[in-house]
Formats: sequence, C-alpha cells, structure tokens
Amino acid sequence: MTAVTIFGTGSMANAIAGVLSSGGADVSHISHEQTGSAEITGDIVVLAVPYPAVDGILAQYGDQLAGRTVVDITNPLNFETFDSLVVPPDSSAAAGIQARLPESKVLKAFNTTFAGTLAAGTVGDLTTTVLVAGDDAEAKSTLVGLVEKGGLSAVDAGALSRARELESIGFLQLTLAAGEKISWTGGFGLVR
Amino acid sequence: MTAVTIFGTGSMANAIAGVLSSGGADVSHISHEQTGSAEITGDIVVLAVPYPAVDGILAQYGDQLAGRTVVDITNPLNFETFDSLVVPPDSSAAAGIQARLPESKVLKAFNTTFAGTLAAGTVGDLTTTVLVAGDDAEAKSTLVGLVEKGGLSAVDAGALSRARELESIGFLQLTLAAGEKISWTGGFGLVR
Repeated sequence: MTAVTIFGTGSMANAIAGVLSSGGADVSHISHEQTGSAEITGDIVVLAVPYPAVDGILAQYGDQLAGRTVVDITNPLNFETFDSLVVPPDSSAAAGIQARLPESKVLKAFNTTFAGTLAAGTVGDLTTTVLVAGDDAEAKSTLVGLVEKGGLSAVDAGALSRARELESIGFLQLTLAAGEKISWTGGFGLVR
Repeated sequence: MTAVTIFGTGSMANAIAGVLSSGGADVSHISHEQTGSAEITGDIVVLAVPYPAVDGILAQYGDQLAGRTVVDITNPLNFETFDSLVVPPDSSAAAGIQARLPESKVLKAFNTTFAGTLAAGTVGDLTTTVLVAGDDAEAKSTLVGLVEKGGLSAVDAGALSRARELESIGFLQLTLAAGEKISWTGGFGLVR
C-alpha cells in the first residue's frame, strides 16, 4: 500500500485525501499546527497548502523530503491583484520547488481542479481529470494510477517544464471563478 | 450586419467562418495568394494563419487594420521542439500584435479550440467554448455575441494580458493531442 502524507487540512487537502484513499493509499495529514514537529511517513508527499506556506515546509523538511515524491498543487497567484503569478514568467512554482529539492521527485498536479470537482469526481457531466506533470516517469505513473483507481481521470501532461502551462490554466480558471464567469464547481474539463 | 474578413482558408479559417456566418456576420476570406493585393473590407479581421505568417500580413496591411478589430487565433509554438512558445515568456503573440497595431483593437480568441470542435459546436457532450481576451470591451462583446449567435459558448476571459494564459492552454492542448493523450476532436471544455 502506498503511504501518502498530505500537508494541510483544508478543502483541497481533504478532497485529495478522498481521491487517493479511494485509490488504495494509506493517507495521513500534517496540519499547520503539526508542521515542524510531525514526521513525514509517506512515500508521496502532497503540499496541499497555499503557495506562501511552501517555503517554510521546504526549510523545515528538506532533508526528510529527499528521495520522496513531492506533489505541488499550488497556484502561485498574486492574490492582491489577481492579475499575475508571483513566480518568474519563464518558470513555475513546481520548478522552483524541484530546484530547492534536487533529491526529490517533484510532480505538479491537482492545481487545475477545484476542490469541489475533485470531491464530486465530476465537472459537469465529465469525469474530473487531474493533469500531472513531472520528470520522473515512475513517480508520475504511480500518482496517475492512484488517481484513476480513485475514480477520476488522470493524464500525463508531460515534463515538469509543463507545470508552467498547468499554472497558467489554474490561474485563468481562478480568475474566471472570481469573476463569476464560471462557478467553483465548474472549470475546465478534458475530453479525450 | 457585421462584416468579417478572415485571412486564411485552412481548417481553422473555415470553421471560424462557419461559426461567424451562423452568427449573422457577412464573412469573406483573403487567401494566401490574395494577400497583398486584396483589400480588407471587414470591421472584424481574423488572422487565421500560422503564427509565422502574421508578420507579413501586419507589414502589408498595418494601415488598413487601423481602427478595426483584429482577432489573433495563433498558437506560437516552436513546432520543431513542441516544447516551448516562440514569444517572450512574459508576453504573448496577441500582445506583440497589439504593440505593432496600436490603433487596432486586438482580441485573442479561437486558439484554445481545435477546428473540429469549432465545426461540430461541441467538445464531447459540452458546447464548445471560445475564450476571448482583449482590452476593448465593445470589440470583445461584439465577438462574444457573434459566437453565441453562431451556436457556441463564448466567455470573456479578461484583459489582453490574459492572452498569455490562453496561449499556454493552446500550447498544452496541442502537446496533449500530438502525444495522443487526447484526440483532435477533444480538448478542454469549459463547465460554467
């Protein structure tokens, strides 16, 4: 059984826990209060926290994260302006995390799906699709398998460099929901 | 009746012509062979040509495009590597075109929908959604109205700066189709 440690206890953390548990994973959480004291036990570690909280986790857990799969779900928006990302335009939050954790296998996933569509398993009449980018084929395949066993669709979106495009999709989708062009239970679905 | 001039006669040009004609527009084309000699008659001008062909059209038609709405549908990929865009990472093809045509109202649209889903009007069971970004509210509203009257959905995706995100979506969607993760009649649908 794959062990998964999820940083965070919010709606995204809980929705991801639901999917991965349904997929057969043994899921535990490290809450904000436990961060710094609790140990990581999972082979897969999901950073289901707001982007500004990632830095502290990497600083405190860098050594423990070595050798593990680290899943970045963040949308690194400038939430004051809702008009740009705070990461360099030619890079991504995920690429920055990989640079900080050279011995971890970083994946970008879950940032293009609202919590509601992860929990429901559907977006409209479509099965919710999780897009997964990363450079480690085995880590990516394991996550894709867990998500699919959990009842959702999952698609290998390419190398970790594609995280930039996934973050663009997440960004646009957030602006559309904030602007009431779509609902928080809607968003982009993928038709194969 | 809104007059539309479409540069190009390929599958995207024809699919867009079908949608806008159904929406009540009077559509004419300028083919590759006619480019340079034919005059622009439309209030809305659609550049339904590959990105490398845009430069020549702007050079030949810059004066005629002043005052008109110019719709950029391009996905400015590096088609040799399929691994990056050829526009600056902090900008977009559409922003570059607007900079070249300061007296035109540039919109980004139709780059996130494959020709097949424009022609069919559906992606899977969803009505195909055209995402439209631009800084001129009236120009954007007119195009959105034509597309909706033409039987598709259209969503105001924000300012022209959002073209960067639309080009990221178009890029990722093309890599997914080229990698056979999705078909050329599939892609991203938008659930409201």
